[in-house]
Amino acid sequence: MAPIGKRRWAIAEGYIPTWSHGPEPELKSHETACILNAGDHDAHVRIMVYFSDKEAAGPYEITVPARRTKHVRFNDLQQPHPIPRGTDFSSVIESDVPVVVQHTRLDSRQDANALLSTIAYPGGD
Amino acid sequence: MAPIGKRRWAIAEGYIPTWSHGPEPELKSHETACILNAGDHDAHVRIMVYFSDKEAAGPYEITVPARRTKHVRFNDLQQPHPIPRGTDFSSVIESDVPVVVQHTRLDSRQDANALLSTIAYPGGD
Amino acid sequence: MAPIGKRRWAIAEGYIPTWSHGPEPELKSHETACILNAGDHDAHVRIMVYFSDKEAAGPYEITVPARRTKHVRFNDLQQPHPIPRGTDFSSVIESDVPVVVQHTRLDSRQDANALLSTIAYPGGD
Amino acid sequence: MAPIGKRRWAIAEGYIPTWSHGPEPELKSHETACILNAGDHDAHVRIMVYFSDKEAAGPYEITVPARRTKHVRFNDLQQPHPIPRGTDFSSVIESDVPVVVQHTRLDSRQDANALLSTIAYPGGD
Repeated sequence: MAPIGKRRWAIAEGYIPTWSHGPEPELKSHETACILNAGDHDAHVRIMVYFSDKEAAGPYEITVPARRTKHVRFNDLQQPHPIPRGTDFSSVIESDVPVVVQHTRLDSRQDANALLSTIAYPGGD
Repeated sequence: MAPIGKRRWAIAEGYIPTWSHGPEPELKSHETACILNAGDHDAHVRIMVYFSDKEAAGPYEITVPARRTKHVRFNDLQQPHPIPRGTDFSSVIESDVPVVVQHTRLDSRQDANALLSTIAYPGGD
Repeated sequence: MAPIGKRRWAIAEGYIPTWSHGPEPELKSHETACILNAGDHDAHVRIMVYFSDKEAAGPYEITVPARRTKHVRFNDLQQPHPIPRGTDFSSVIESDVPVVVQHTRLDSRQDANALLSTIAYPGGD
Repeated sequence: MAPIGKRRWAIAEGYIPTWSHGPEPELKSHETACILNAGDHDAHVRIMVYFSDKEAAGPYEITVPARRTKHVRFNDLQQPHPIPRGTDFSSVIESDVPVVVQHTRLDSRQDANALLSTIAYPGGD
């Protein structure tokens, strides 16, 4: 049976809250792309980040080994340069093998944290 | 490779909370359609808004430039007329080039904000 | 252009919280199926509700007029009988014309409300 | 009409919060896969759980009877062994008949609970 997933995904929402409330790292505000590679070959993943008022940044390169998941915090992306906080963005994720991508944010700016999540948009085979 | 996305999307949920709690603009209650245009041509987008008890409003016209994202707050739509607060609605988003749409709400009516998000429903090529 | 949507949808999650905190009706805990009918013919909708330990209930019958939305609170369904609170359920929504369905919950059991939302699963043309 | 759903699904996000706040079992932090079997044959379901740094665990075996739903808490899975708390994971759900899967988390680590939900990714017929 073919490995589950697609090679191209998009997340139209993106925003790293600028402050946090509660113990870190668990409750630090973060924006995440969870990438599942359930297949038998390592996934070489490239993330492009799009902004409202300047050219896209990237690619940010990540390897998700075979039969592993990686929950990538946009907060932690450093190369080619960090994602600015408090700024609207979107992302496109491309992989050389099928993966499944889900988008999650934890926002702990106020006394109790808020969460959002959605399977990303699968845009290519 | 074809640009990612579709030309027609729907968001069946829609509601702008009528009050807020916390510093603005970050924590003002809002309802958002995040629109990613990862292609090389500007996207001319038209949003129709549907209500439970009157004819649909719109089109609200927005341009999302090539390789840019726009996080459109329904709160800010003014022409042809503002969206009423505290009212159930839905929306259909049409574009002349492929885009990706994601729906997000931040509700800060109580002491700590709540969030929801989902990729919209892709309804046409 | 064909009206947007599908004729059959499923929501696997379902749960009406048993208590609330905050002003009603806005902040009463509720479970909702938002149904958009963007077409030119009224939608005759039938909802079946599935439980973990007894036969399914329904159909609950709802009309969504042409070019209208209806945000149906499961709390308010009465015929053939109310949905029990604090009980796991799922639902299947069928319509005679294409509609778009999105699932939302507002949970106000604690001091600040929580939200979840997702486009439902489109299961048939 | 064919029963609604697919035989293979993926949830790329997965995390069981390590503490809770509020009355149990309703407000105990939990991670759930809601599985709807709207068909007339029992569904024999197998869940594989993927981690970031070790081999996948499972299969966890569950039966969802015909015309029933089961909201499976990952917290409760015991065989072949419990899922660790506070650890990133993903899951793949396979069934011998079509089912619909939705992912939900309730996080009650702070004073007010947070919720997330999304229909899972349908990866096979």
